[in-house]
Amino acid sequence: MSQQSDQFKKLVSHCKEYGFIYQSSEVYDGLAAVYDYGPYGVELKNNIKEYWWKAMVQMHENIVGIDAAIFMHPKTWKASGHVDAFNDPLIDNLDSKKRYRADVLIEEHIDKIEAKITKEVTKAAKRFGDSFDEQQYRSTNGRVMGYQEQIDTITKRLAQAMTDGNLEELKNLIVELEIADDTGSRNWTDVRQFNLMFSTQLGNIAGEEGKLYLRPETAQGIFVNFLNVQKTTRQKLPFGIAQIGKAFRNEITARQFIFRMREFEQMEMQFFIPPGSQADWYKYWKEARMKWHLALGTPQSKLRFHDHDNLAHYADAAVDIQFEFPFGFKELEGIHSRTDFDLGSHQELSGKKLQYFDPESKESYVPYVLETSIGCDRMFLATMSNALVEEQVPGQDDPNNTREVLKLHPALAPVKCAVFPLKRNDERLVSKAKEIFNQLKFSFPTQYDDIGSIGKLYRRQDAIGTPYCITVDFESLDDNTVTIRERDSLTQERVPIERVEQIVKERIDMVQLFRD
Amino acid sequence: MSQQSDQFKKLVSHCKEYGFIYQSSEVYDGLAAVYDYGPYGVELKNNIKEYWWKAMVQMHENIVGIDAAIFMHPKTWKASGHVDAFNDPLIDNLDSKKRYRADVLIEEHIDKIEAKITKEVTKAAKRFGDSFDEQQYRSTNGRVMGYQEQIDTITKRLAQAMTDGNLEELKNLIVELEIADDTGSRNWTDVRQFNLMFSTQLGNIAGEEGKLYLRPETAQGIFVNFLNVQKTTRQKLPFGIAQIGKAFRNEITARQFIFRMREFEQMEMQFFIPPGSQADWYKYWKEARMKWHLALGTPQSKLRFHDHDNLAHYADAAVDIQFEFPFGFKELEGIHSRTDFDLGSHQELSGKKLQYFDPESKESYVPYVLETSIGCDRMFLATMSNALVEEQVPGQDDPNNTREVLKLHPALAPVKCAVFPLKRNDERLVSKAKEIFNQLKFSFPTQYDDIGSIGKLYRRQDAIGTPYCITVDFESLDDNTVTIRERDSLTQERVPIERVEQIVKERIDMVQLFRD
Repeated sequence: MSQQSDQFKKLVSHCKEYGFIYQSSEVYDGLAAVYDYGPYGVELKNNIKEYWWKAMVQMHENIVGIDAAIFMHPKTWKASGHVDAFNDPLIDNLDSKKRYRADVLIEEHIDKIEAKITKEVTKAAKRFGDSFDEQQYRSTNGRVMGYQEQIDTITKRLAQAMTDGNLEELKNLIVELEIADDTGSRNWTDVRQFNLMFSTQLGNIAGEEGKLYLRPETAQGIFVNFLNVQKTTRQKLPFGIAQIGKAFRNEITARQFIFRMREFEQMEMQFFIPPGSQADWYKYWKEARMKWHLALGTPQSKLRFHDHDNLAHYADAAVDIQFEFPFGFKELEGIHSRTDFDLGSHQELSGKKLQYFDPESKESYVPYVLETSIGCDRMFLATMSNALVEEQVPGQDDPNNTREVLKLHPALAPVKCAVFPLKRNDERLVSKAKEIFNQLKFSFPTQYDDIGSIGKLYRRQDAIGTPYCITVDFESLDDNTVTIRERDSLTQERVPIERVEQIVKERIDMVQLFRD
Repeated sequence: MSQQSDQFKKLVSHCKEYGFIYQSSEVYDGLAAVYDYGPYGVELKNNIKEYWWKAMVQMHENIVGIDAAIFMHPKTWKASGHVDAFNDPLIDNLDSKKRYRADVLIEEHIDKIEAKITKEVTKAAKRFGDSFDEQQYRSTNGRVMGYQEQIDTITKRLAQAMTDGNLEELKNLIVELEIADDTGSRNWTDVRQFNLMFSTQLGNIAGEEGKLYLRPETAQGIFVNFLNVQKTTRQKLPFGIAQIGKAFRNEITARQFIFRMREFEQMEMQFFIPPGSQADWYKYWKEARMKWHLALGTPQSKLRFHDHDNLAHYADAAVDIQFEFPFGFKELEGIHSRTDFDLGSHQELSGKKLQYFDPESKESYVPYVLETSIGCDRMFLATMSNALVEEQVPGQDDPNNTREVLKLHPALAPVKCAVFPLKRNDERLVSKAKEIFNQLKFSFPTQYDDIGSIGKLYRRQDAIGTPYCITVDFESLDDNTVTIRERDSLTQERVPIERVEQIVKERIDMVQLFRD
């Protein structure tokens, strides 16, 4: 098992064991690619949402929020292009009755050839020992070079077929490469396009007329409300509308835990601007969004910009912010210059003017749009994978004395503070600790715990990322002071009980993330 | 138009005009019974959710939250009884192809007879003037007595048919009463049961096997996660799990604005208890939940308990907290003693033990459940309708000088504070006001405004419920003080600028709602 996949498995099991994420409907053996957030998960997710919402809405005079419904008029998805073009190429196996994504079958075939190369390389490395030069071996060994050529050819044909939407070529590849399904059968149907939107049916309207979609993205809820929002809040261009909400995609092959789910949450902001100003705003939002990620303390080395190779038909510029997940650098957020495509399409299909009257130029026009779109669940996964560390306990000599600690930014931590009595069987310590707990819980999420040794209590809070632990000891009974232990450094300060609330409050305050 | 419906119309148009609620997909002429929350609406709704979440989760050591997905394994809805019994009786008109709820058609027929009585009574009242005794007239006038008898008979037969699930009797009533549809046609199909769950289809599994439902309630997401949550948070009975999330019902006749929507949000808490303790916890949660409502300042006269007339098959006690909406007292929240029905059903269907091991009695058992369930959108509607007031401006003699003001609790208000310069063309006032705004916005949602006279600025903030308005005047330039104007009393205090943040912060703090 590679180090990466080992790290990923640890993350997934930590999420389950400590109540961050459970598989959906586990008692019924689960529902694929759907997950539930547990007690600590929901708090962390809510804090991520709050950080985004405050950064976008509260900190910007010219950005307001909305919360549009998941159900929208079906014409919305005609205008957006989703009814006609939001498809995956699928193929059915006639023997097993199983359904696959044609491009994924081919990618998996490529992976198998890759694995053959890895096997040859590993074998040779063993044989040659220290003198082994992998690069030279790869460029001279006949068998390896043959595999590599196969990979290059297939990759190129696959990319071309996907770009052209050439379903016949995908089928050809599957047949030529003799790809079999899980059961070993090569009895395939033709490849056909399958729309990724989930559909449902209104009860009071029969047939196609009553067909509804679960939105595959939240953005359209912002576009169709553009004029309502602009008028009721009296905003002038440039201004933005922000939204957090669920979206749904009928993925055939969903992988990588909560990275790609059938039901997921987006945090999107559409910034409406005069045509011609998009290059400046694109630059502005690229910088602003990267700053937002870095403010949490995520190392710059784990974040990077990645320009889109192929621009969507509506975009005149698009970049991803990628994060280094345990399975490699992948998209975390997208910043897209969408031109007037969306508002223009809705205007055309609805016959209603979706224009802005510019009080200075005295002209009406369809605004351009600059979008920032981040997956809330991906941000959760990035945050968890960046925070989870297994380390030797600081200040201890024994290298076997390790701990699992979740080094979350204090503003995001699900529990802010835990209060312990040094001994659970001392009534005076317990009652003082409970008194402190009952005071602090009004100000921020706090836990009281006394089941186990102090060391065990600390480890438990480390594992859920609690930044501050307060211990009530015998000195506390004399002078009304307690120790505050900081999660990452393990430093302990002795402070008066009456100051604890204020100290913790200041350190967990989200506001510090917004100040330069 | 009655005073009630007049008040309701004002509320609906206020929600639209000031950016609280828009009809969904309005540019496509809307989607019935679906609504979007606008810029002030989403903030108010988020504050309501936060108030509920903090009261339930943060304030209770033994309640934790979760956020389960909308999609669940379909067996969940078999176990819960929704697949078999979550139905409405529907009837189609063969000429118009329109679909109706059979019981609603009959209720509307009753309303028409009621209207005839009202007409007779109004006519008589005019004829007799001051000497008119309505009660006597109703109990002696032959025509009115005849109408009343019809109403009583139909109401009784309808109630019996609904209780028995007697679809034939519903059809008989529609035929006997010669009920026509909107188009005047009486050409009806038979009445049949229609399941209220929206269904959709997984892409990778064909047919019935891949059928998914959109959850019609959030509660089941808590039940199937019961053991996961109990174990990962090491809770002991009694303990609760709280959740906020969307649910969906395929309502045929959705009415009353956001009171009954096809897509809505619930705030539910399931409290797991030892069997036998349900009566005590029922009493506890009735009181706790009523207290939560009253803490917001809602008058006791607008809230009441209403025991359920018919208990659901799984319940051994159930009560609603009703609120006096503009259309009468209606359910706002339900408190239900659900016994072990839900956990027991899931245990039976899944074959997995859903039991709690009691460390004191050393016994394992299926816990009982006490549920509190409140509609988030209904709470929003109750809050808005309780807050919206049209009144003579306090302290002004002119009765024509009125204002529309939203008297929201400061902790729920979407915008906490607005900052104005006394004159927008004085650079010094403007720059000082903006400086204050740029400081305050870090702490809470704040607006800067200078478009219009001070009177107009105040009215605009009154209409969206902003509790505090800060005005920078010429005195401010001399002594660094400003006035704080309180929304409801219109009192103005003069305070040093450096104290404004702290003063507003204390007054909007949600914590005050939790202290006795």
